[in-house]
Amino acid sequence: MNQPSNDTFLRALLRQPTDYTPVWLMRQAGRYLPEYCETRRRAGSFLQLCKSPALACEVTLQPLARYRLDAAILFSDILTVPDAMGLGLYFSEGEGPRFERPLREEWAIRDLEVPDPDGPLRYVMDAVAEIRRALADAVPLIGFAGSPFTLACYMVEGESGSEFRHIKTMIYERPDLVHRILSVNAEAVTRYLNAQIESGAQAVMLFDSWGGCLSDAAYREFSLAYIQRIMAGLIREKDGQRIPSIVFTKGGGLWLEDIAACGCDALGLDWTMDIGAARRRVGDRVALQGNLDPSVLLASPEAIVRETKAVLDSYGPSDTGHVFNLGHGISRLTPAEHVTVLVDTVHDYSRHLRGK
Amino acid sequence: MNQPSNDTFLRALLRQPTDYTPVWLMRQAGRYLPEYCETRRRAGSFLQLCKSPALACEVTLQPLARYRLDAAILFSDILTVPDAMGLGLYFSEGEGPRFERPLREEWAIRDLEVPDPDGPLRYVMDAVAEIRRALADAVPLIGFAGSPFTLACYMVEGESGSEFRHIKTMIYERPDLVHRILSVNAEAVTRYLNAQIESGAQAVMLFDSWGGCLSDAAYREFSLAYIQRIMAGLIREKDGQRIPSIVFTKGGGLWLEDIAACGCDALGLDWTMDIGAARRRVGDRVALQGNLDPSVLLASPEAIVRETKAVLDSYGPSDTGHVFNLGHGISRLTPAEHVTVLVDTVHDYSRHLRGK
Repeated sequence: MNQPSNDTFLRALLRQPTDYTPVWLMRQAGRYLPEYCETRRRAGSFLQLCKSPALACEVTLQPLARYRLDAAILFSDILTVPDAMGLGLYFSEGEGPRFERPLREEWAIRDLEVPDPDGPLRYVMDAVAEIRRALADAVPLIGFAGSPFTLACYMVEGESGSEFRHIKTMIYERPDLVHRILSVNAEAVTRYLNAQIESGAQAVMLFDSWGGCLSDAAYREFSLAYIQRIMAGLIREKDGQRIPSIVFTKGGGLWLEDIAACGCDALGLDWTMDIGAARRRVGDRVALQGNLDPSVLLASPEAIVRETKAVLDSYGPSDTGHVFNLGHGISRLTPAEHVTVLVDTVHDYSRHLRGK
Repeated sequence: MNQPSNDTFLRALLRQPTDYTPVWLMRQAGRYLPEYCETRRRAGSFLQLCKSPALACEVTLQPLARYRLDAAILFSDILTVPDAMGLGLYFSEGEGPRFERPLREEWAIRDLEVPDPDGPLRYVMDAVAEIRRALADAVPLIGFAGSPFTLACYMVEGESGSEFRHIKTMIYERPDLVHRILSVNAEAVTRYLNAQIESGAQAVMLFDSWGGCLSDAAYREFSLAYIQRIMAGLIREKDGQRIPSIVFTKGGGLWLEDIAACGCDALGLDWTMDIGAARRRVGDRVALQGNLDPSVLLASPEAIVRETKAVLDSYGPSDTGHVFNLGHGISRLTPAEHVTVLVDTVHDYSRHLRGK
């Protein structure tokens, strides 16, 4: 496999010099794009879209056709893994993801097994390979997974909006059961990400969407410890190329130094944290990815330019170590043309800051 | 007016020595109490309960009859203020608060006026006075209000669950309009809290429930600056007694030092922050209130004892400066008898730690 012709994203993650700051957007293949909505309609449902390698490839490439993005990210969902564990994932309109069989009983937790990435998750690997072929080494492809704790939240709650009461009660009441789920999840995610790497993913990202709902002690014990376990088990090099890893804990600003020490190459930041302050806290140990408030994209082009420049200014002068992104997934209400303003501003202004 | 016979809460806020750590719970008069549900049923609705001084007094006292709590808090709602501004507050079952006339138009924002605490908010002052009489100086009474930004979120969005898109778009697009709303809110809240103090509130708390949704720069400009303005305008002494103030920004862990410098006597902490680490960060400048994860109360009595002691141990040896509380409002699913375990553990274990 070849290094992509635009490897700015990979170089920035590895803290090698680049001419400008690379940019991609969480959920960049999403409902704000009319062409995405059209493909999703053809697929029949969100889950069928995820499970069709051809359609997943199609939507992965859509934002790259519109914008000068520096990376593609596999179109999929973090819940493919618990779905492959047999929990019965489904999506009811306007309700978010649900599981038919949430994990509440001790016997079900004991019976939980690591799914084979080449078995029920084969479709994900097929999508990765198909996207790599379609990308033709133009930009790198990011693989991803949910963190063990975030997956456990969905698996135990079975639905959104429950304020985490089942998983939290279990944490305080039966921590042994939570640790059992997290151990299985950590192994499952490690194998899943490694299979994505073997299939062609050139960087991987771990989404810890719900770790920020935990107390300090519980975050360390039930989320970060298992992220560390995954980091220790990841394939780090493929065909002579380093495979960088990014860890993103939403609401994780309090734990930056600890996350930076988990073995990742880069830290994803949500928008609540000043990126310059984050850089001062973690130094040059890891690259930083982020962190524009996604709401900025709902405002005027002038506001988008101003706020995008503010993030770049706050990161400060450097010719590497920053991957521009939003602090959370792009809103479905974003006008598609606003993304052009963002991407062009990141490229042009970061070149300007570097005197290129 | 007299100092209450149990003034542990006030003394701890002012960092004077106490024999044990005082405790009260956010939303302690709430739906987890069957007697509260009964009174609410009699009132007809949540809003009618807030607006009847006799019934508000009744529910304020209910948790004190059950538990050895060290403070009472006025039963009311943060949205009484925008309701008094004429926005038409209503509650639809299971949907959270809504406004009939959300603030979106420039003319409506320009027309916004500070409500007279002795006019449309008179019922709140009557409730404060009635509760003070009923308490007969047993424990102190806390008055409260929402922060200017938190009120603005509700006023502009008009409903919950909108991910703050209207207020955030306004922040980036028309910051002048947001500042206009916040200026009115800050003056309204200052007058409202001062009127509560004049009516008998012996401490006041400002709830910044949504400041944590902002970026670092926006938090400072749109939330903290207006909290500071309120702190500067509060009545600080009444009848020779200092009136302590508590500021609570949910998700505010990143800004602790700045909030501690806003002029408040105490900082409310949510459960994501280790209270010992918070104490090391703010030193002895302010007292700390918090911060048990409310989910702990859903677990077993053994877990409640263990986790309650962990918070007290983390705060560390000191004979003052800590008011025990949850890190957020008590869940309606809490078994009422679990609160006894919590309150008794706080009292007994903190006496033990002080060798009393």
